Amino acid sequence: MRTSIATVCLSGGLDEKLAAAAAAGFDGVEVFENDLVASPSSPTEIRRRVQDLGLLMELYQPFRDFEAVPPDHLARNLRRARRKLELTCLLGAPMLLVCSSVSELATDDDSLASEQLHQLATLAEEYGVRVAYEALSWGRHVNDYEHAWRIVEAADHPALGVCLDSFHILSRGTGLDGIGSIPSDKLFFLQLADAPVLAMDVLQWSRHHRCFPGQGGFDLPGFLHRVVAAGYRGPLSLEVFNDVFRQADPGPTAVDAMRSLLGLQEALGHRLDTRPGADLDLTRPPDAVDPAGFAFVELAVDASSGPETEDLLGRLGLAHGGQHRSKPVQLWQRDDARLVLNYGDQRLSANLEGDSLVTALGIESADPAQSVRRAGALIAPRLPRRRGPAEADLASVAAPNGTSVFFCRTRTTPSWLDDFLPLATADRPGGDGPTHIDHVGLIQPFEQFQASGLFYRLILGLRPRGSVEYAAPNGLMRSRALASAGGRVRLALNVPVLGGDVSGPATAQHVAFGCRDIFATAAALRERALPILPIPRNYYDDLDARWELDPAMLEAMRRFGILYDRDETGGELFHLYTGMLGHRLFLEVVQRAGGYDGYGESNAPVRAAAQLAADNLLTEG
Amino acid sequence: MRTSIATVCLSGGLDEKLAAAAAAGFDGVEVFENDLVASPSSPTEIRRRVQDLGLLMELYQPFRDFEAVPPDHLARNLRRARRKLELTCLLGAPMLLVCSSVSELATDDDSLASEQLHQLATLAEEYGVRVAYEALSWGRHVNDYEHAWRIVEAADHPALGVCLDSFHILSRGTGLDGIGSIPSDKLFFLQLADAPVLAMDVLQWSRHHRCFPGQGGFDLPGFLHRVVAAGYRGPLSLEVFNDVFRQADPGPTAVDAMRSLLGLQEALGHRLDTRPGADLDLTRPPDAVDPAGFAFVELAVDASSGPETEDLLGRLGLAHGGQHRSKPVQLWQRDDARLVLNYGDQRLSANLEGDSLVTALGIESADPAQSVRRAGALIAPRLPRRRGPAEADLASVAAPNGTSVFFCRTRTTPSWLDDFLPLATADRPGGDGPTHIDHVGLIQPFEQFQASGLFYRLILGLRPRGSVEYAAPNGLMRSRALASAGGRVRLALNVPVLGGDVSGPATAQHVAFGCRDIFATAAALRERALPILPIPRNYYDDLDARWELDPAMLEAMRRFGILYDRDETGGELFHLYTGMLGHRLFLEVVQRAGGYDGYGESNAPVRAAAQLAADNLLTEG
Repeated sequence: MRTSIATVCLSGGLDEKLAAAAAAGFDGVEVFENDLVASPSSPTEIRRRVQDLGLLMELYQPFRDFEAVPPDHLARNLRRARRKLELTCLLGAPMLLVCSSVSELATDDDSLASEQLHQLATLAEEYGVRVAYEALSWGRHVNDYEHAWRIVEAADHPALGVCLDSFHILSRGTGLDGIGSIPSDKLFFLQLADAPVLAMDVLQWSRHHRCFPGQGGFDLPGFLHRVVAAGYRGPLSLEVFNDVFRQADPGPTAVDAMRSLLGLQEALGHRLDTRPGADLDLTRPPDAVDPAGFAFVELAVDASSGPETEDLLGRLGLAHGGQHRSKPVQLWQRDDARLVLNYGDQRLSANLEGDSLVTALGIESADPAQSVRRAGALIAPRLPRRRGPAEADLASVAAPNGTSVFFCRTRTTPSWLDDFLPLATADRPGGDGPTHIDHVGLIQPFEQFQASGLFYRLILGLRPRGSVEYAAPNGLMRSRALASAGGRVRLALNVPVLGGDVSGPATAQHVAFGCRDIFATAAALRERALPILPIPRNYYDDLDARWELDPAMLEAMRRFGILYDRDETGGELFHLYTGMLGHRLFLEVVQRAGGYDGYGESNAPVRAAAQLAADNLLTEG
Repeated sequence: MRTSIATVCLSGGLDEKLAAAAAAGFDGVEVFENDLVASPSSPTEIRRRVQDLGLLMELYQPFRDFEAVPPDHLARNLRRARRKLELTCLLGAPMLLVCSSVSELATDDDSLASEQLHQLATLAEEYGVRVAYEALSWGRHVNDYEHAWRIVEAADHPALGVCLDSFHILSRGTGLDGIGSIPSDKLFFLQLADAPVLAMDVLQWSRHHRCFPGQGGFDLPGFLHRVVAAGYRGPLSLEVFNDVFRQADPGPTAVDAMRSLLGLQEALGHRLDTRPGADLDLTRPPDAVDPAGFAFVELAVDASSGPETEDLLGRLGLAHGGQHRSKPVQLWQRDDARLVLNYGDQRLSANLEGDSLVTALGIESADPAQSVRRAGALIAPRLPRRRGPAEADLASVAAPNGTSVFFCRTRTTPSWLDDFLPLATADRPGGDGPTHIDHVGLIQPFEQFQASGLFYRLILGLRPRGSVEYAAPNGLMRSRALASAGGRVRLALNVPVLGGDVSGPATAQHVAFGCRDIFATAAALRERALPILPIPRNYYDDLDARWELDPAMLEAMRRFGILYDRDETGGELFHLYTGMLGHRLFLEVVQRAGGYDGYGESNAPVRAAAQLAADNLLTEG
């Protein structure tokens, strides 16, 4: 289906918005009035610009507060309409969007509304323009699409139809059955927006919190299915008012937007596979390959952070088992827990000196080639291969914040592991230790949080596991969890809830290792003198008050700095943290029991406070 | 009255919070459970720390989900209660706050609630602790204070009383008459928070958007008046959950918080002056002196931005009329419009090279000494005097973002103007020009926006004129206007709505000059070749569509780049902008007509877009 985006979705001047939309691969645009009014280009210059970029001019919007006014106000409104229709015509837009009135002048009189919209449509015809009437969810008298359709039906003018907007309909929970009874030739336009489910005034919700399909809580595929089943074949046009997108770079936002429409078409395709009936031109990427685990996590290190990281990994129980044949890259592993330390990554810039940083995720895929094709179809930027002679051909793509995502099969011949020369000294430390990577916690830039979530969800085929907020000592954090169907790949994407000046341990990445027995592992870590993050005694007193845990176990937890969480079905998580590696990374060891499926989010404030206290101690000492 | 603050209001670790509260002059604190659980200090260490800081330990909170459970759950709850009462006792807190249950276990049975709270109070007595029961506005069965009081009254235990929380009461619009019927010895505690008036879920509203008294939309003085009239004489304790404060430096936040309680006591005092009856120990600053205008605005300039600024001021119609006798400081003026250019200000640091910056506001006060005393009483930091021999004694204080605020009388002998030696070359340019400073637009740091608003409001006695949000091309901005009673001093405090990476013209300061006739002034500016910000033709087409202005006037506005706004009562604003002076300052000329009292906020998006376009043009050129 044709794709389109309203200029209000993107930041910058109108020219930048149009260029970003074209670069991201959109077929067309809606021009938003405020963008036009503020533009130094004339309507005809804008028309030419849109053409030159290879875009279709789908619509001009919005024209407000027109219908159902007392007759003595009509002349003024028609004068306004004439001006805006002229503009629409000069822009080369075939359609003007008219939204239901919020004016105090508007009367609750459907036949008057129909009659005046009929006049507007007649005027529009003179300019070769069609009028799409949309019910705002906060319209004064008309606030649902069925009401708007009754008025349009009664107006009975060929140049007048309805515009459906997913936000206005889904935010109010309006029933969707009525969509099927609107004739397809009266479904003039379709605007799409998702939104988180919030209990707030619908106007504020709409103006600030809309997001792209797949980023919120609405069932956009189900909604779209209704609309295409009713015969709509016009563009899928995004109209998203979002405070964060308004201040984000328009280029990446447009890519995120386009990806959301590709994901939406895929989801619609899945529905149509089981309930066919519509002959649609859907863009569909190759199916996702369910990730079978983390093949590796790559850390960039430098001359200062590298040895510190090596030391910590050794105490954790991993062994330096291999050295890359041509690059300053080490392989550390224990069972399926593999970390790659890269001493040559340029992304560790001057201001990150002394830090270790997660720069790449290696994802186990049964079919890496298909994984890469899917990523490409979902416009993930392909990264240049870094392959030497006789080295494995590992393809990778870039996540929105620049993290590389590799697709690989570890247990195959040849394997990427073959690029690492086995070391004679690679003795695995005795005692218990990690067996695999349980999850990775990634801090995302404030402006790219939504885009990152959608990227990992779609590219890796992960499922969202909910979102939590917690108070770190220096700011509120949001954590959004994603997991593969089998739970073998888990990500926690973290971001300060507000932008601004948040730093410190709360905004560090982490790699969490799974183990079989956390008490045995903790004993081995202590044996190997691993610095475990000290947890306050007050925390254990509180655990005791809340859970009445076995005193001996509680005492062992306290001794080792093990934290605890329990879910509603009795699943349990035991976990502990290392100290910080520089300022941007720490490690975690977890043991899941009884089907626990979370990440110990309830302990995040205690962990962050303990890290800050340890950090202050180091700074003072 | 005694002042207190809950540790949850401040960011950082518990030790930092306590230190900040003490430094800001609070008498006491409430310790919030999460802060204690995450603290590495034991309860007795915290108790000692609080004592050493000279603070009173007023309360430990909250204990949740206790009352009205089925009998078989009571033992568990009493076990939890015993642990928390032990803790309260170790902390040295005389009181534990119990908030109404949100648990699904809680039954809607007031007598059961009373009976169980009686048991809790009996237990509390063993520890020498009193229990304050508070109705959460989202409590499962108990969500207003009158209901909580009925339960407490029926429980009839000397160690059990109520805690009133202004947010829970005012957010639900609960009537206040019931406060008077609670015996004063049962009013155990009072928590104060203001909040903006929002239409949203009360839990989210409470957890994220509370602010200090005077920063929101609630009538806190009226509420407090009821509570003290009922005989409450305990502490005024702030309990504010605010996303921004959570990430702001705790020191300034604590000062802001303390100032809010001083302002609240002053407002209460004003009420009691006219309706006496309570014998209260209120802290009251000297009365505000209504500012009579801007004496001057000071700009810091450097070798690059200075000459550019001088050039612009000359074209604007100001004359370089005086030179400071001992400092590299120029006086530019025309009638009452005075700008002071300071070539020696250290605040123009290396990364602001080439910029001009508003660093000081000179406020006309009929009694500068009293203005300064008031500022001091409201804990505004006094700035060191910069007085040479035979120079005027100008006292100043620092606003939260570091801007200096001077209090002066210009038309007096001696005057601060005497420090400037009159220049022979000071010819005032011909033609029309500014006559005074109409308002100053100041960008505030994201974390200090609330504090700045309260600072200017209280220190200068300004009145808030509402707050608007507008979409600049690179982000959403919030603008809060404040004005003196006579409208002679007006400030617009601006901030990006979200933190994060917002820069460019939208985040620049501005100085707006008033004039008698903007068309004559614009003609003179053009005559003097002042670069006026070009406004798109599309804007005037839209004005025409909206307002049907006189075509000749519209054409003149278009020619000169004059923008237009009209308020609901027909008042009109005409205004134009200069180009940018560096990256952080621009100037404006305004003419108000018919009592227009705003700032042309509706034109801000067009202005910001035009500035960005002009900026891009310069960058490309």
